[in-house]
Amino acid sequence: MITLEHCQQLDLQDPLRALREQFNLPSGVIYLDGNSLGALPKSTAARVAQVVTQEWGQGLIGSWNEAGWFDLPQRLGDRIAPLIGAAAGEIVVTDSTSINLFKVLSAALQIAKSADPARLRVLSERDNFPTDLYIAEGLCRAQGGTLELLEAGQLAAALAPEAAQDVAVLLLTHVNYRSGAMHDMAALTAAAHRAGVLTVWDLAHSAGAVPVNLKADQADFAVGCGYKYLNGGPGAPAFVWVSPQHADRFWQPLAGWWGHAAPFAFTPDYQPASGIARYLCGTQPIISLSALACGLDTFSAAESLGGMAALRAKSLALSDLFITLVEQRCAGHGLTVVTPREHGRRGSQLSLAREQGGYAIMQALIARGVIGDFRSGDGKQRADILRFGLTPLYTGFEEVWQALEQLRQVLVSGEWQRSEFSLRKVVS
Amino acid sequence: MITLEHCQQLDLQDPLRALREQFNLPSGVIYLDGNSLGALPKSTAARVAQVVTQEWGQGLIGSWNEAGWFDLPQRLGDRIAPLIGAAAGEIVVTDSTSINLFKVLSAALQIAKSADPARLRVLSERDNFPTDLYIAEGLCRAQGGTLELLEAGQLAAALAPEAAQDVAVLLLTHVNYRSGAMHDMAALTAAAHRAGVLTVWDLAHSAGAVPVNLKADQADFAVGCGYKYLNGGPGAPAFVWVSPQHADRFWQPLAGWWGHAAPFAFTPDYQPASGIARYLCGTQPIISLSALACGLDTFSAAESLGGMAALRAKSLALSDLFITLVEQRCAGHGLTVVTPREHGRRGSQLSLAREQGGYAIMQALIARGVIGDFRSGDGKQRADILRFGLTPLYTGFEEVWQALEQLRQVLVSGEWQRSEFSLRKVVS
Repeated sequence: MITLEHCQQLDLQDPLRALREQFNLPSGVIYLDGNSLGALPKSTAARVAQVVTQEWGQGLIGSWNEAGWFDLPQRLGDRIAPLIGAAAGEIVVTDSTSINLFKVLSAALQIAKSADPARLRVLSERDNFPTDLYIAEGLCRAQGGTLELLEAGQLAAALAPEAAQDVAVLLLTHVNYRSGAMHDMAALTAAAHRAGVLTVWDLAHSAGAVPVNLKADQADFAVGCGYKYLNGGPGAPAFVWVSPQHADRFWQPLAGWWGHAAPFAFTPDYQPASGIARYLCGTQPIISLSALACGLDTFSAAESLGGMAALRAKSLALSDLFITLVEQRCAGHGLTVVTPREHGRRGSQLSLAREQGGYAIMQALIARGVIGDFRSGDGKQRADILRFGLTPLYTGFEEVWQALEQLRQVLVSGEWQRSEFSLRKVVS
Repeated sequence: MITLEHCQQLDLQDPLRALREQFNLPSGVIYLDGNSLGALPKSTAARVAQVVTQEWGQGLIGSWNEAGWFDLPQRLGDRIAPLIGAAAGEIVVTDSTSINLFKVLSAALQIAKSADPARLRVLSERDNFPTDLYIAEGLCRAQGGTLELLEAGQLAAALAPEAAQDVAVLLLTHVNYRSGAMHDMAALTAAAHRAGVLTVWDLAHSAGAVPVNLKADQADFAVGCGYKYLNGGPGAPAFVWVSPQHADRFWQPLAGWWGHAAPFAFTPDYQPASGIARYLCGTQPIISLSALACGLDTFSAAESLGGMAALRAKSLALSDLFITLVEQRCAGHGLTVVTPREHGRRGSQLSLAREQGGYAIMQALIARGVIGDFRSGDGKQRADILRFGLTPLYTGFEEVWQALEQLRQVLVSGEWQRSEFSLRKVVS
């Protein structure tokens, strides 16, 4: 049986332990929701104050040049690149994940159609993050395509070359937002390519959480989120990557002046910039963009300690510990671990299903200072889910112990059945 | 002849003079570029610090509910509504102006097409802000329409019912970014409607600068900018308004989860929210959004002093003074006032054309602490332009005098011809 002392020992032996000092976390709270909103880096407040007071207040319009606001989308993209196996110059940080998905899926559909007009189907997963499906649905309707939703286990068969002759794009989120299950990007991309299908990967729950190798895995397009594991702050702008082989091949439809070849020539006709810059559209929110730089700084300190490989090793150790403690100390209370046990299929969150009461249990847990979140099922195929993000930059092993101890007490005491915990909030 | 003393007297008599105290402006600078980037309100730094340190740092994920992040786009929209003649519940603040234009122009084209499939032309102005034309060009290409660019003087004829039978949409920027000329929204909208044409208005240079009456003028769609006259900070999110008669009629193509009828149900199929909420797409940059609230606060203080009508009166007095001083004190140096002299056709900026040397003159002026900006011509029809934004919340009459005095000295001395002033910056 694992003990508290053992977990404390794991913290003492953790080579990444000092990285937590980069963050301001509220006292008395165990924060296991960095998969939804990353924690605040200590450097962010001062940097944001500088942007507001100095760069905007004193520098005014001149800061577009002098403070480098104008190329911030590219400079931040260059810093994300090594976290996801891309190269500098291939990523811009801009807009939201949904809007970036619209851009790359449009491009992918046009490329597919230009190669073979019969390729009109988009394959995705029923359990993909809904906004990805909404964007795909809207694009398919506008362009005459169809969106087909499969279970994860059906993907391999659907990508068999004889079955996929009319498929244009495989659209997947690499790590599932509910279950924490991770797809094999290399294998699925290879299967897609064998069938002549392009791949679009949503890295919202991957970037900064698990090693990603877009170029080695030969992915075609990717988007991702700045405010989860990258610690960029609430609603931080998102990023978009396009394989250099595709970047110049299509004019994405959100063709605004920031993506123009000569944005300050103010010519009435659009000429797309070369490369990834054409995936920019309008002026970006500089204060929020600047905060993301501080989130990325928290990864710089990890570089000398082994970088993403070391973060991944710790993440898996944390989630292994979580699973073991659920089994050893919370058994008999109706909880099922739905995140895959196989390391190669696990992201950096741990999800527990329960037939009913999941929302109230999470609320009771939050009242005890352990912050995870809840994702509702559909009452049929999809179970209610308790989600716990394990963010190796700032989550400790003793915290996992304490979180499970609080969960055990919530379950044993039955306090979650008090009426106050079942009141739904707007954002649950 | 107008004297410095006269201008100082105008400041003393200015009932809005105290409003300037709401802003932090650098000492020794006359800032006449609020039409490009509004000045920093004094309250913004503390508010942004609170959002970062308290709401994000301490409140973490709970702030989506407890700090009201989730409905910030609607709450900010409600505050913009009275500035542009719209009602609460009709505006959301989100994304960029370019992206919001994509949404409303898509909606307008679909509505027009559903009423009459032959209506496929979009009319706009050659001198419209280029990103508006780029977005329209992209949409027309995707949807089989055509974009036709006219000179302002050709619009009335093009909107004659017999000439406009195949026109879907009239897309105009209300106040021109280069010349400062203002369209007659009521008259053009009425002419468009007589011809069965919908109107899309870009209010980037209008909102907070001139009175706008979207509903009284029966406009159909509008977008606008948060970082110019609304003082929201660099790249602040933009806004979008849709006439209630159209808001529920179309499913805009950037259909993301924030525009879903039940965003937290996480259903795989998209159901648009009712009303303007369906014009939301993905998660918004909360820090930048929060800063915009402080920009809007600077208008609240103007309410008891006469609101937009009083601001407009001061703006016109400032630009009248500017024109008179150009004529009295800068004559003989090749400058032409291109902003209309007629009050009903003038926005809140003053633009001067010069055959050559405009860029270097502006750089020399900036070196003397007078900040305006420069917009390049095309060497043919469009002249080079020196732009001066006159923002009645913080620009004073003596400042106009001093700005013109510095401009006079730049011209008389010939110092602008020094090589240092002709070096182009990235963002000019």
